[in-house]
Amino acid sequence: MPLDNSSSPTTKFNLVQVNGTWVRQREEGQRAEGRLSDAKIFEKKSHQGVSWTVVSPIVFTYKVIQSESLLDPRNDTLLWGHLDVEDLNTAHMSQPVKRFIVIDDTVHQLYGANVREYFDSRKVVYKVLSLPTTEENKSLELVTKILQEVHEFGIDRRSEPIIAIGGGVCLDVVGLAASLYRRRTPYIRVPTTLLAYVDASVGAKTGVNFAGGKNKLGSYVPPIATFLDRTFFQTLPRRQLSNGMAEILKMALMKHRGLYELLEAEGSKMLDSKLQCSDAASTCTRVAIETMLEELAPNLWEDDLDRLVDFGHLISPQLEMKVLPALLHGEAVNIDMCFMVYVSHLRGLLTAEEKGRIFRCMQGLELPVWHQDCTVNLIKNSLSERLKHSAGSLRMPLPTGLGQAEIFHDPIEEDILSVAHQMWTRELSPTLK
Amino acid sequence: MPLDNSSSPTTKFNLVQVNGTWVRQREEGQRAEGRLSDAKIFEKKSHQGVSWTVVSPIVFTYKVIQSESLLDPRNDTLLWGHLDVEDLNTAHMSQPVKRFIVIDDTVHQLYGANVREYFDSRKVVYKVLSLPTTEENKSLELVTKILQEVHEFGIDRRSEPIIAIGGGVCLDVVGLAASLYRRRTPYIRVPTTLLAYVDASVGAKTGVNFAGGKNKLGSYVPPIATFLDRTFFQTLPRRQLSNGMAEILKMALMKHRGLYELLEAEGSKMLDSKLQCSDAASTCTRVAIETMLEELAPNLWEDDLDRLVDFGHLISPQLEMKVLPALLHGEAVNIDMCFMVYVSHLRGLLTAEEKGRIFRCMQGLELPVWHQDCTVNLIKNSLSERLKHSAGSLRMPLPTGLGQAEIFHDPIEEDILSVAHQMWTRELSPTLK
Repeated sequence: MPLDNSSSPTTKFNLVQVNGTWVRQREEGQRAEGRLSDAKIFEKKSHQGVSWTVVSPIVFTYKVIQSESLLDPRNDTLLWGHLDVEDLNTAHMSQPVKRFIVIDDTVHQLYGANVREYFDSRKVVYKVLSLPTTEENKSLELVTKILQEVHEFGIDRRSEPIIAIGGGVCLDVVGLAASLYRRRTPYIRVPTTLLAYVDASVGAKTGVNFAGGKNKLGSYVPPIATFLDRTFFQTLPRRQLSNGMAEILKMALMKHRGLYELLEAEGSKMLDSKLQCSDAASTCTRVAIETMLEELAPNLWEDDLDRLVDFGHLISPQLEMKVLPALLHGEAVNIDMCFMVYVSHLRGLLTAEEKGRIFRCMQGLELPVWHQDCTVNLIKNSLSERLKHSAGSLRMPLPTGLGQAEIFHDPIEEDILSVAHQMWTRELSPTLK
Repeated sequence: MPLDNSSSPTTKFNLVQVNGTWVRQREEGQRAEGRLSDAKIFEKKSHQGVSWTVVSPIVFTYKVIQSESLLDPRNDTLLWGHLDVEDLNTAHMSQPVKRFIVIDDTVHQLYGANVREYFDSRKVVYKVLSLPTTEENKSLELVTKILQEVHEFGIDRRSEPIIAIGGGVCLDVVGLAASLYRRRTPYIRVPTTLLAYVDASVGAKTGVNFAGGKNKLGSYVPPIATFLDRTFFQTLPRRQLSNGMAEILKMALMKHRGLYELLEAEGSKMLDSKLQCSDAASTCTRVAIETMLEELAPNLWEDDLDRLVDFGHLISPQLEMKVLPALLHGEAVNIDMCFMVYVSHLRGLLTAEEKGRIFRCMQGLELPVWHQDCTVNLIKNSLSERLKHSAGSLRMPLPTGLGQAEIFHDPIEEDILSVAHQMWTRELSPTLK
């Protein structure tokens, strides 16, 4: 009994809703009046019975909104920014308004009072759950904790989004909890770190670590809205700003020379001003979001394995998990990127001068460029894991200039990796320099 | 600072992939050569910054395949049926072939040896994980257990689907585990009960119970394929067959008079023959799948709250959880449906004769029609919960004849519920009859 690959005909059916009931209609047949679905059903008969193939598109729509002073009680965004203007009137009608807010412990210390004041002043029935959302705690247990509290508090899964306020871990963990609760509860991301602002905020990914693996569990469910407010950066330690700059540098190197040159020229000053009111900071964050959205929107569920945004993320997950908590995410990413710049150089894709410029730009952003635990074995192991999980091709994004890149499919020759590692270590290791 | 509802213009961008890099292009501007995405980005500038709205469609495609003797080593379906014929040759190339199989304990006792024989004979590297997948165990803990074992075994999240063999609980739990693992690992559903065959198998829903609530956590990720094999029913207890008949009756009452009349005429005989090789059983299961697919395919993520398939599922979740494990799912559904038939009758939607026919049909299918724990309070409570979670409208599907239905939005008058409950109890309660 081999699979049925006979040439028995396939019938294509459209789906039309007539008086509340969906009915199949042959593509070529007469059309009844009614709402036509984008979904299709293909039917094929064989000696073993019927086979159906269901094709059903789901459209995800989400907002990414820059706003100033989100926690100012006069600012409507935090409470209503996820809605379209036309839905606002009906939303106000349902009383009382309820919100469940998950906030990172550190952010809570800094902004907890403002958050409460915001919701108090708006007469919202709310609960603030403060959690230690660190990489070490990024687990299914934390998700369960959130779910228990949400369940106890009680929210309407249609109209009362869960709000996450914090860094990337907080946004990822809350996103997973929300995507699980009643199979999908809307959630809102409010990033308070630069890294989360330009990275975790704009896509659909949620996740937790599992069995020693980074983000091994998760979902692809975008928030209903992300609210971006740079004023949070005022309280960020300088190291956290550099951390975020790494992901901006990634997008710059991969696809935007203008952004790269801005980082080169203004990176250090932007760190000094904590990315507050300057044209450079404003342009830098806007272009970072724009370039990320460009790459993520067409590939929200990562069905396409060729992804420029993976640059810096081939070796860094293993490195980050290995040395936890010594390196922040962006720092591990930058070490990965810096090594890859050497690979690009050895492959003739980047000149020595370009390699030097990128290194100096990283220095200007105060990012680590080398790490002793990033051994040639860890690198080879990471790349072979990558190969295993990306359908037989390495799909390695490499810069081919400043602000342009290509994705390479063949495995990198082992000796190039070794030579790159030697050169990288010789030039950048603090003990060997 | 109210929300920005100024008339500042919105710019619509298409996304085009040029040399591996996605670039935004104004809808009205010149088009570069390249792959055009279905995703769109809308941009709006305000005094507070930029707002983007991302619209990104994801297409889910899955197969539902009837096959005979799935566990016969000569049958390719279980191993390769999820692939299109054109993908088969490349799939065979990657060696060794690995499969992780989760099977219900009871099914394992009956078919475990056959499953092993199947994969042994095909030289597959496999692991069979047998679990007690009962309603009481349908929890996040069971999901975690599966995830740990999958992680230890190691599978390719692109090409090595997890296979679930069992009843609805098994398929739901494995579906959730697979949808979480690496954010989405393909899985295959092999229903062994009639209920799972016609219900859990054909849609996208996965789930577990949480905090005393039925299916409170889960996801909407369809299997890559479902393989349907009626020969499993040979070992089903008669009560389990009736249990499945309840969901078939639901579809019949809601939208298919022919199916209803088949159940009326042949229901009892189909139970006798365990739905094995008869035209009636074959038609009955095929039409049940067809009608389910019609309703589910256009509404895979349940964005439309008006759902005929919810008939029998407004009161039954509370009843089922309350008396667990006294009632099987389909039995609770049938009690719910039977009560609703009385509501329909009192609202003038069903004649006394039709009500009587439906009752006799349920009897022929050996389904319970009344339960002492289905009190008027439980009913009112369930409906008010429903109202809370369905955007201000009850959206109650009710039969308006044999094989046709409508969805009613207004709350049912309290006195109709009380009178219906009295009438239902008077006519059908075993102690009062």
